[in-house]
Parts: sequence; C-alpha cells; structure tokens
Amino acid sequence: MSWSSGAAEEAEAIAAVSCSGHGRVYLDGMVDDENTEPVCECNSCYSGPDCSHFLTDCIADANGGDPLFLEPFWTQHAASSAVVVAGWHRMSYSYNNNGFISKELERLIRKLHAVVGNAVTQNRYIIFGAGSTQVINAAAYALSPDNSSSPAGIVASVPYYALYQQQEEYFNSAKFKFQGDPYTWRNKTDSGAYTIEFVTAPNNPDGRLNKALLQGPNVKTVYDRAYYWPHFTPITAQADEDLMVFTLSKLTGHAGSRFGWAVVKDETVFNKMTIHMQINSMGVSRDTQLRAFKLLKTALKGEGRELFDFASQTMKARWEKLSSIISLSKRFSLQKINPEYCIFYSKVREFSPAYAWVKCEREEDKDCYAVLQVAKITGRAGNAFGAEDRYVRLSLIRSQDDFDILIQRLNKLVSEENGAKII
Amino acid sequence: MSWSSGAAEEAEAIAAVSCSGHGRVYLDGMVDDENTEPVCECNSCYSGPDCSHFLTDCIADANGGDPLFLEPFWTQHAASSAVVVAGWHRMSYSYNNNGFISKELERLIRKLHAVVGNAVTQNRYIIFGAGSTQVINAAAYALSPDNSSSPAGIVASVPYYALYQQQEEYFNSAKFKFQGDPYTWRNKTDSGAYTIEFVTAPNNPDGRLNKALLQGPNVKTVYDRAYYWPHFTPITAQADEDLMVFTLSKLTGHAGSRFGWAVVKDETVFNKMTIHMQINSMGVSRDTQLRAFKLLKTALKGEGRELFDFASQTMKARWEKLSSIISLSKRFSLQKINPEYCIFYSKVREFSPAYAWVKCEREEDKDCYAVLQVAKITGRAGNAFGAEDRYVRLSLIRSQDDFDILIQRLNKLVSEENGAKII
Repeated sequence: MSWSSGAAEEAEAIAAVSCSGHGRVYLDGMVDDENTEPVCECNSCYSGPDCSHFLTDCIADANGGDPLFLEPFWTQHAASSAVVVAGWHRMSYSYNNNGFISKELERLIRKLHAVVGNAVTQNRYIIFGAGSTQVINAAAYALSPDNSSSPAGIVASVPYYALYQQQEEYFNSAKFKFQGDPYTWRNKTDSGAYTIEFVTAPNNPDGRLNKALLQGPNVKTVYDRAYYWPHFTPITAQADEDLMVFTLSKLTGHAGSRFGWAVVKDETVFNKMTIHMQINSMGVSRDTQLRAFKLLKTALKGEGRELFDFASQTMKARWEKLSSIISLSKRFSLQKINPEYCIFYSKVREFSPAYAWVKCEREEDKDCYAVLQVAKITGRAGNAFGAEDRYVRLSLIRSQDDFDILIQRLNKLVSEENGAKII
Repeated sequence: MSWSSGAAEEAEAIAAVSCSGHGRVYLDGMVDDENTEPVCECNSCYSGPDCSHFLTDCIADANGGDPLFLEPFWTQHAASSAVVVAGWHRMSYSYNNNGFISKELERLIRKLHAVVGNAVTQNRYIIFGAGSTQVINAAAYALSPDNSSSPAGIVASVPYYALYQQQEEYFNSAKFKFQGDPYTWRNKTDSGAYTIEFVTAPNNPDGRLNKALLQGPNVKTVYDRAYYWPHFTPITAQADEDLMVFTLSKLTGHAGSRFGWAVVKDETVFNKMTIHMQINSMGVSRDTQLRAFKLLKTALKGEGRELFDFASQTMKARWEKLSSIISLSKRFSLQKINPEYCIFYSKVREFSPAYAWVKCEREEDKDCYAVLQVAKITGRAGNAFGAEDRYVRLSLIRSQDDFDILIQRLNKLVSEENGAKII
C-alpha cells in the first residue's frame, strides 16, 4: 500500500473506538475541546465520553424512520463494504460524457430486483435521485400535464406518508395540488380531472400492501415501494407498475447516503424525470453512487441471503416482542395483517412491518401521542399521516438501544394498565 | 491494517492503470465484456483500450464547465485526499440527532473563507446543498414572499448563467417568475413589486465582478460567488452580502460530488432554506460531506497556498495562451477586464477567468457558435446566457487534453483568417 495507507490507518483507528457499544466515532465527527480527535457520538439515552452512562429517565425515541437496525450487519461485513475514495475520483459532472448515472450501479440494481423478485426491470428505465424524497418529487413533476390550465390533483389513501403532501404544498407549483384521500376524490363528478395517486406498498405507517384506488385515462399512479423488501413483508409478487420508487435507506439502512431510484416504464416520463434531476441538483453525488455500488455488491453476496436473513430475523424478533406486549393490553391495539406467501423465501410468512400503527382504544384517549408521551415514549401522531390522533406510529427500525428502551417503556405502560405498578 | 486492506488494494490497483495519461479507470467504471475489471474511460478525442489513440478529426469540447483542470492537483496529493468510508459510516438521517449538516465541515468552510479572505462568515449561517444548483433554488424559494398574490420577479443581468431562468421556469411555482434583465426591469414603474436579483460575481460567462443593479425595500439580492476564488479573479475585498452562494465544483474541481453552500445573514432566510433542503432531499449525502471534509482539509494545508498556487498558475497560463492567439485575430475578440489588487496574493493581478467570452466581430458572423463549430470547436452559444449569438462561451477549466485541442483548433482558425493555410 502507498497513498491509501494513511486513510486506512485513520479509518481503522476510528473504528476501533467502541463507545461502550452505545455510540460511535466518525471520521468527520465532532472533535473535543483540544480540537484533536473525534469523540463518541452517543445513542439517545446514553451519555458520557464513552457513552457508558445510561440516562434512566430519558424518553424512548420511536419517532423517525432512521434504519439503524441494519448497522450491525455492516460492522459484521466491514471488509467487503469499505470503499477507498481517491481524491481524483469522478470529478466530472458526467459519467464518461454520458449522463449522471453510473451504469454499473444501475446494473447491480437490476440484478438485485431479479434476485429478490420484487420488481420487473427488464425493458424498464432506471433513474436515480437523492433518496426517494427527490425521486417522488421528480415523479410528481414528470406526471403532471405539460399544458394544463388546472393543476393535477395529487392523492394518497389515509393514512399516508406526509412527504407527498409537504412537497406539493412547499413547491407550490402551478402543475399540481394535493387533494387528500382518493376515496373522497373518486366520488367527485369531475372525472376528467388529471390525477396522480401515490400508493405506498407496504404502506407507511401501517405496513399494508396498498393498491391503487383510482384508474382511468387521466389517472397516473406512483407506487412507493420503499418498504417492499423481505425485511418488512412477504414478497407476494414481482411488482410491475408503471412507476415504482425505491430507496437505499430502507434496503441497506443507509438513510444518510441519500440514494433512491425509480423503475419507469414510459420513456417520456423517464426523460422528464431526468430533466428534473438535472435542474434540481445535476444528478446524485458520484461519491454516493460509488458507495451505493459497494454496498449493493456486498448485499448481493450469496444471492442476497446474508443481508435479507439478518434483516428479516431482526424485524421478526422485534415485531413479535412488540406484539406480545400489546396483546396483553386492552388500552392499545396494533394493525393486523394476514400472512401471505413470499416468493423470496418460498413460504407463507407473517408481516414484520417497519412501524407499529398503534391505536388508543379508550374513549378518552383521543390524543394517543400524548398518552404515550406521558409514558416517556415519543411516537409520531396520527395527524402527520392524515389520520386521527387516536393513532400513533412507533418506529421499529431504529437502533437496538432505541428499540430496547421502547420495549422497556411499553412493558411498564401495559403492566400498569389496570392500576397495578411494577415493583 | 485489517478490514480496510481489501478496499485499499482495490483502489491502488485501479489507480495504477495509466490509460496513457488520456483517460482514467474508476472503481465503479464500466467493465469489459467478460465483466471482470473496470476499463479505461478516455478523455474526449482519445480512444482505444488504453486511450492512446488520438482522434485527429475530433471536435474540441469547450462547452461545459467541467473543472477537470484541477485533477492533477489531486493525483499529486493522493495520500492526504484519500478517504476510507466504512460500511457503517453515518447511516442515520441526522448528525448526532441534530440536523443534516456536518459541523466539522462547516468549521472548515469558515476557516477556508478566513484564509482566502473572500467572504465574511462571522455571525453568519451556513447551509449546504447538492451543488450550488440546489442552493440557488433554495434561495429563490426562501426569498420569495410567503403570502403574495403576485409572484416575486427574478432578474439577472445579461449575459447570465442560464440555470436561474431554467429553474424558475421548470419549477413553475406560484412564488416567483423569471423576468430577465434587471436593467429593463428598473425602468418599470411598478416599483413596489417584489424582486430577487441574482448577481454572479465573477460572472458566468464573462468573468466580471458584477454588482447588483437594483435596490430597495422589496429587493433581495443573491450573490452567486461560485468563481470568487484566486484561480479566476483577484480577491478584491471580503464579500459581505446577505446571501452568498459557493460550490466545491469551482473551488476544488469536484463537480461530480454535488456540494455547494450558502453564507446567509438572516436567520429566517436560513431557516427557510433549511426546510427547502429537508423537503427536497433531506440534506446533502453524508458520504459527500465526508469527502468534502477530507478535500477541504487538504486544500487548507499551507494556508491554502498549494491548491491556490496550482490553480492560479494553471488558469493564468491558459488565459495567456488563449489571449495571445485571439490578439492576432481581427475576426474574434475577448472580454477585457482591468487588473485589480488581490488581498489574497497581496498584489495587483490580472483576471484569469474560467471562460472566454468570445465575440465574432465580422458583420456576417451573426452565429458565432456556428462559425466555431465549422472550425471543430464546440462552445456554448450566446443565447444560452440571454445574450446575442454573436457571442460564444469557451470553457477554459476543462481537462488539459480538452484545452490543448481547443488551442490547436483556435490556432488554425486564426492563422487561416486571411485565407492563408498552415502547411
């Protein structure tokens, strides 16, 4: 080794700091007061220079969808997933004078879908974006009519992922308007109106394999397939929708890398999305594409079994633990989804969704978020998904520390349900 | 070394392939038919498996602003600029539960501005985006009025960078409309209208240190400072505008990394831009931020002298070569900018702009782009900058190969100006 050895030493030294197993040191981490070395960044509920101090009274964070449950997989696959980025790596705007997309990464993505069997990619276009976040927005722009005096209506079934609505409202484009639930919309007489339906399958927050409600010549459908991986759901069929959105975040757990993609049938829609990516950010960072390439190469080892076995087993264990607690409760209930046949594992499987969609059953518990907050659990309130506040989403994909504390708090809450206190 | 050695070996093996000095192999490069190893990706005008074959008749590419002139600096600083990214590096959406921005990278950026003396950052906010592309769009949204029945007008002096107009037209927001040159706009009587002026200084395409034309209570100004580095211009003063936009692309040459930032005075504007980055892409890839961190650390060595000396000398040599050819011509002319005092180099210096803004002087040469195209030179036509097609922009920041071929073609064109042919 010559020029790479300094960087390798630096990375290995950083990785060797354990932070008591409740935190991590990063190369670009906060440094201490003497401005020398990066310090431990502790998981929530842990503190101290080595993250060994447990904050007993802290609040269990079950809010965001940070997919840290996959972090142990990557520490266990350190050698195959590391990547050395040279100072001169891909400085250009384009790949070999030809667009913003790594063809080798595209090839790996097609291979991955073939191995998992969750989506048809033959004769389909693939476009990259900065997470599904940017891809979803590109889809909304690309599917809106070019010359229309009235904007396209964007709809999503309640409960829905809030971003669809937030983006449409924020960008405030003359091209589209958010119009809520398609069920209401379907009863409107204005059937000639141009409509884009976002279908999240499995759904965020409740994990159901939603299907489109609307159809017709002026209806376009975007399938958000972020969670359509064996970790969270039986793979019931090879999806073959016109426009399917995926993200690295919920596949490998690399939310921070901001990498997502769409599989697109129609060339015109693909071309429009390409223009979107150009005008918005000139494509996805080449550094990110290199990293995604290395991660997916590792994920594909052994026909994907290592990654998906680890991820499925973790999610199954978490779901069972949570369900068994809630099953003891009359105050709270969980979504129920019947098992289905999974073509990836070739057997009937239970769902192990990314989120628990908890309902407060007591008449007086109208604000379920507040009920949980009193028990030192932070979820995400139902209204963030266009639903009643009698519902709360609890994230099950966060770090093991976050999940353990959530279970601890839930156990206590359910045990105390009938006035009894745990000693 | 343990887990990092495989990645290090792989990277060094790739880097050792020379591609005859006219191309490069990348880790995620196209592989050959046997699907084994990445192959050489050749510079334009070169081909063959090792890029040794010169395509004599090829067209000199002086169109895009690919800043490959800086690539040799990074190959010369291989050891300090390499970075090893571990598989588990920053998988989370946020930095230590606190936003989308690496505080250590922010600290480096402030230090860099202090060392160069090109911008005030004390008591200013810094926001990151996917290149200045995304930052510029965030600024347009953030500076538009929240509740206005009429959209903000966006203006930029001719000749201007086309992206301002493209973005406004593409996003088609109710919040703003592109309205062309502020000079025209200033004469309008509707002085109460809300206006955002984009000022590019140094200007793209002509390198001038533009100043804002409009002022008033309803005028907001965005200074695009992408080119305000010692490579391209004397640093005449520490810029202290309300909103200044910078990009890694024109500083270190890493266009492909998609990293830009803004220095912002007003907290409300900063908060709005933060929301933009969240809704658009949930911040900049953490992989990119890590790489930018490593690159800027290298750039700051020796108080920035190594990078800026290399870059300034390269640009100076290129500008002098180009000017000396055009000075022999009556058919073509170049922009002229008077030297100014540079506070970074503590002396009066000539400009060495990123682009030549070439004018075709002959009455009949109304389409200067076509004139150059006949001579096998591709520039960018004046109309792309809102200017006459009597002008063409020629990029001087591309690879040495591209520049050498451009000079060859220009030499021939100017030599033949009076009918004489070179033998």
